[in-house]
Amino acid sequence: MSLPPDHPVCDGRTRDADLLLAARGERVTRHPIWFMRQAGRSLPEYRKVREGIDMLDSCLRPELASEITLQPVRRHGVDAAVFFSDIVVPLRLAGVDVDIAPGVGPVMGAPVRTAADVAALPELEPDALTPITEAVALTVAELGSTPLIGFAGAPFTLASYLVEGRPSRDHLVTKALMHGDPDTWNALLAWTARISTAFLRAQAMAGASVLQLFDSWAGTLSLPDYERFVAPHSTAVLAGIEDLGLPRIHFGTKTSDLLLAMRDCGADVVGVDDRTPLATAINRLHASVPVQGNIDPALLFTPWETLREHVQGVLDAGRLAPGHIVNLGHGVPPATNPDVLTRVVEYVHADPVR
Amino acid sequence: MSLPPDHPVCDGRTRDADLLLAARGERVTRHPIWFMRQAGRSLPEYRKVREGIDMLDSCLRPELASEITLQPVRRHGVDAAVFFSDIVVPLRLAGVDVDIAPGVGPVMGAPVRTAADVAALPELEPDALTPITEAVALTVAELGSTPLIGFAGAPFTLASYLVEGRPSRDHLVTKALMHGDPDTWNALLAWTARISTAFLRAQAMAGASVLQLFDSWAGTLSLPDYERFVAPHSTAVLAGIEDLGLPRIHFGTKTSDLLLAMRDCGADVVGVDDRTPLATAINRLHASVPVQGNIDPALLFTPWETLREHVQGVLDAGRLAPGHIVNLGHGVPPATNPDVLTRVVEYVHADPVR
Repeated sequence: MSLPPDHPVCDGRTRDADLLLAARGERVTRHPIWFMRQAGRSLPEYRKVREGIDMLDSCLRPELASEITLQPVRRHGVDAAVFFSDIVVPLRLAGVDVDIAPGVGPVMGAPVRTAADVAALPELEPDALTPITEAVALTVAELGSTPLIGFAGAPFTLASYLVEGRPSRDHLVTKALMHGDPDTWNALLAWTARISTAFLRAQAMAGASVLQLFDSWAGTLSLPDYERFVAPHSTAVLAGIEDLGLPRIHFGTKTSDLLLAMRDCGADVVGVDDRTPLATAINRLHASVPVQGNIDPALLFTPWETLREHVQGVLDAGRLAPGHIVNLGHGVPPATNPDVLTRVVEYVHADPVR
Repeated sequence: MSLPPDHPVCDGRTRDADLLLAARGERVTRHPIWFMRQAGRSLPEYRKVREGIDMLDSCLRPELASEITLQPVRRHGVDAAVFFSDIVVPLRLAGVDVDIAPGVGPVMGAPVRTAADVAALPELEPDALTPITEAVALTVAELGSTPLIGFAGAPFTLASYLVEGRPSRDHLVTKALMHGDPDTWNALLAWTARISTAFLRAQAMAGASVLQLFDSWAGTLSLPDYERFVAPHSTAVLAGIEDLGLPRIHFGTKTSDLLLAMRDCGADVVGVDDRTPLATAINRLHASVPVQGNIDPALLFTPWETLREHVQGVLDAGRLAPGHIVNLGHGVPPATNPDVLTRVVEYVHADPVR
């Protein structure tokens, strides 16, 4: 099943957008930039439309999800929209009892820790994805030549929420399960990989031009653990969307030792967090793939001259890679002044490409 | 001021304990092992004596702190006691308004974020340390040939608590302060370095045979940020205790890219967390110093055969360093079965040294 002919990449609307050029390692007209979590609490217009509406509910109302997705594009002039959703949305759509507790994060009705728990996980029916495909279609109709990035949580990150039952700092139960009962672990990750793949494919078919796999928690693992217990499943996801021909970005935080392994899962672009200097990351990747990142979000709270110098350093380092999509090294902090983000976009766009 | 003649290292009680031999890179009789946070919630005898007593209060009652320090030595037969305290204890003793909120961690009455806030910080008077030196003396009198490890929080970790006001995952305010107002930052870290140094020296003079500097949060920083904003201050602490001639262990989590910089602060032993395979860490340190670590705490919750293989792997890797102190890669999780820890100690002690 390939993309429909009216898909923005197929009909040419986004095919040569700077974001896609950079992701393919081709010459750009301006440095493309977007911000992870750009559609969110830093924007007053977001807080207004979300008022009184639960997080997961807002992801599942197509008009609202589309409006939220479009807000930062209108405001900042970024080079991409990123679909407003949450990595646990496909779990909810599959029928898993999950909620997002304000100030906490995803909380499961019951953790998934045994072979029986895994066997009892429901499959994600294609029809359940209708609110997603509707929202994507609405959004793409508005975006014109600005590409939409679809995304999904990677198998490990989804599994860690399922196993721990809630956000965890040390992932002790998750790591005990992978080492202590690898069969159950692999069955669980095969399930989360199917969920991720289906969620990404639905967004792509409905009009997303780029796909990002978020492994938010991968950095909690050592390289040997990542390679043994996680990489095969992330590889399955990235292989499962390869036929679409859309750029695949692979990102996690605290992944300085995992960058090459994350590339080797089949990524076209590797996202870099702010703990690894971009030049170091490119060096570890042997400058073999385009990179995305990695303005330190903390610098958004410093005087402009300090931030400007930092952004310039990121732009300069990015030239060492075959392509560079400018982004933060992590999501936009809720307390960010949105005017600062707009100023960063203007600065990055004004920097000459060489 | 050098150590008193009745100090356990000077009078010979602990001078050639395996822990000190390993820290000096000399031949040991058995692999020395202890566990970070071994005196704590995993032990029923600890939960019993702490019942109804606030965390910081229990650190400041000499008999109680001493009893808690001795409990894991009696139970597990570990090669060292680690002084029961908390990295914020010296802040409290200096007169800073700090408490440890159960389930949260250290919480400040008011965060320290401006030059005026830093200027208003009180100095730590030597007399204020009496509860610490009393507890250490009581403990050392019981320990005989088992060394006591004194410790302190490193300047960055202390500062991050002061700046954020409470535990933080992303340290945005801390990082914004260091970049945006380096003068205030350096004044604050000079203050925390004095506090750390005084706290370590007090424990040493009262009888601690080894000193560990904990930089729990250093791994949140990139290497350039660590080198520019943190390393000079940690160097000041380690230089400030060098004359004592006791082994200095330097430890943080998520420090895979910082290990060499942490050694270069003046560490005699570098602690390694469980995210970096021990052989990788030793390689990054050019096998130039003894190491401490790094059994993955999550493996304590797996079947014995899985844990045993993992511990053996750590022991085997440790032989690549000039010396190896066996430990976890992080603190003992509260839910740990203490019998598992005892079994690990027995296993490690039975492994022949080559």
